[in-house]
Amino acid sequence: MTDTVISSATREVVIGFERPFVAIGERINPTGRKRLAEEMKKGDLSRVERDALAQVEAGARVLDINAGIPLADEPGILARSIERVQSITDVPLCIDSSIVAALDAALSVYRGKPLLNSVTGEEERLESVLPLVKKYGCAVVAISNDDAGISQDLEVRFAVAKKIVERAEDHGIPRSDVLVDPLAMPIGALGQAGRHFLRLVARLRAELGVNTTCGASNISFGLPNRPPLNAAFVGMAIGAGLTSAIVNPLDPEMMTGIRAADVVMGADKECATWIATHRQASAGSPEPRRRRGTRRRRPAGA
Amino acid sequence: MTDTVISSATREVVIGFERPFVAIGERINPTGRKRLAEEMKKGDLSRVERDALAQVEAGARVLDINAGIPLADEPGILARSIERVQSITDVPLCIDSSIVAALDAALSVYRGKPLLNSVTGEEERLESVLPLVKKYGCAVVAISNDDAGISQDLEVRFAVAKKIVERAEDHGIPRSDVLVDPLAMPIGALGQAGRHFLRLVARLRAELGVNTTCGASNISFGLPNRPPLNAAFVGMAIGAGLTSAIVNPLDPEMMTGIRAADVVMGADKECATWIATHRQASAGSPEPRRRRGTRRRRPAGA
Repeated sequence: MTDTVISSATREVVIGFERPFVAIGERINPTGRKRLAEEMKKGDLSRVERDALAQVEAGARVLDINAGIPLADEPGILARSIERVQSITDVPLCIDSSIVAALDAALSVYRGKPLLNSVTGEEERLESVLPLVKKYGCAVVAISNDDAGISQDLEVRFAVAKKIVERAEDHGIPRSDVLVDPLAMPIGALGQAGRHFLRLVARLRAELGVNTTCGASNISFGLPNRPPLNAAFVGMAIGAGLTSAIVNPLDPEMMTGIRAADVVMGADKECATWIATHRQASAGSPEPRRRRGTRRRRPAGA
Repeated sequence: MTDTVISSATREVVIGFERPFVAIGERINPTGRKRLAEEMKKGDLSRVERDALAQVEAGARVLDINAGIPLADEPGILARSIERVQSITDVPLCIDSSIVAALDAALSVYRGKPLLNSVTGEEERLESVLPLVKKYGCAVVAISNDDAGISQDLEVRFAVAKKIVERAEDHGIPRSDVLVDPLAMPIGALGQAGRHFLRLVARLRAELGVNTTCGASNISFGLPNRPPLNAAFVGMAIGAGLTSAIVNPLDPEMMTGIRAADVVMGADKECATWIATHRQASAGSPEPRRRRGTRRRRPAGA
């Protein structure tokens, strides 16, 4: 019964066992999106706004915001993106950067209790990020790799997660504010990656009592026909105990799969969300029956 | 590492841990299919043939054959259907009847080692079906209800399964030939049915070391938009350890979901089946991209 509470100025989202799964929208990330990167760099946040609204409308309950653009002022762009997105939607945000100064800049403007993405088991990262988590009282994604890299040994991955959770407690951060990412690796390269992930999720929940998350689409990297693979993976991981994931909410297979998994887990009380979504779709709303890749509002492009 | 081996005269199918999931085609069943029932009753097995071929083409690795038609000669119809289907396809069959005389008639004409569907924990059923299983050396589906009905207590459902497995051993039937069906109940009526099913599957595998099966579509009974629910449920159950299920192979969401779950579990070696299916689809074959409800060969109808 571990609840991870995050919030905007006016809305709270709770990630927890036996609760509906929390989809964190991944779209606001310039990595691999050249046009978005160019626009963000020159201060045009119109696409960021559109992506935010489209993801919330598609069912994202938290939005990840990443401004990792080479040779750009990442702290400034990230902070401005956070402010802009908070001005048009009330969903809590996940502040995503590998640069500590950018995390700090974004935290200083954020209204509410965000999710910080991320700390790892690397010594330098632990000691630079955890003080920020404590200072701002936010929640944090803990990725289970350390100075030795990403281990293919499940025992090591579990031990790294445990180390981060314990170190966070040393810093006065409760484990309910640590969301462990046991790392979804590409199955195309590592055949047992999916099975291992499921085992780690179950173990993290049973033995550490922590909530979990992951970047779900990594699992299908390099394979064809990725959306049904990603959706099946997330559903299976929910069955094993996963409580949130960073996904593309504009992928209708993913969102339908998540809602279906909530029904199977008994987390969709009286199947109310499932039935309401079906009624909405039958009444002529394009969601969730629209074709893959199309978007409800305007083309989000690049 | 429990392998349940079933066969036709020329082909073997192995249901087992760490192996690709086995989809058992459910279509040849006159329950709720009025036209099929009428035709089977008057000896017209043309639709049975078409349904057999379409299901095999869609990926069924075993076919369930049921001839439960009120006021008809079920033993005769079942035996003739078995003979007819075995004459046109080499996949092993699952002989499905609640009438012991019909099971006996079908077993007497079957070539190979079939799956018998089913025995329950009811005393009379145990002592009439298990001797047949022993006599013909077949495998059997063991449904975990007994004379007291279907318990909502997981401990009782597990205990009934254990009793059947032990009684089978008393009759000289190895537990590798017993496929336990822990009963997928409708989530619309019993909100925890999905979660309970997943727990039972994991426990049956860990503690009894048996393979498992179920009638997957029960789970969504009474709910709208059933195909994605059924597919999510089967994927999650595969994650929990389910090794086979009776499904509709003509539902492309189900079959894509099963293939995806095999990838996630590392049971699709080198993702070869996933990649081949994608190539086939891209090359213009309608499978698996055809729309729900359409069939590749001819309309199988009612």
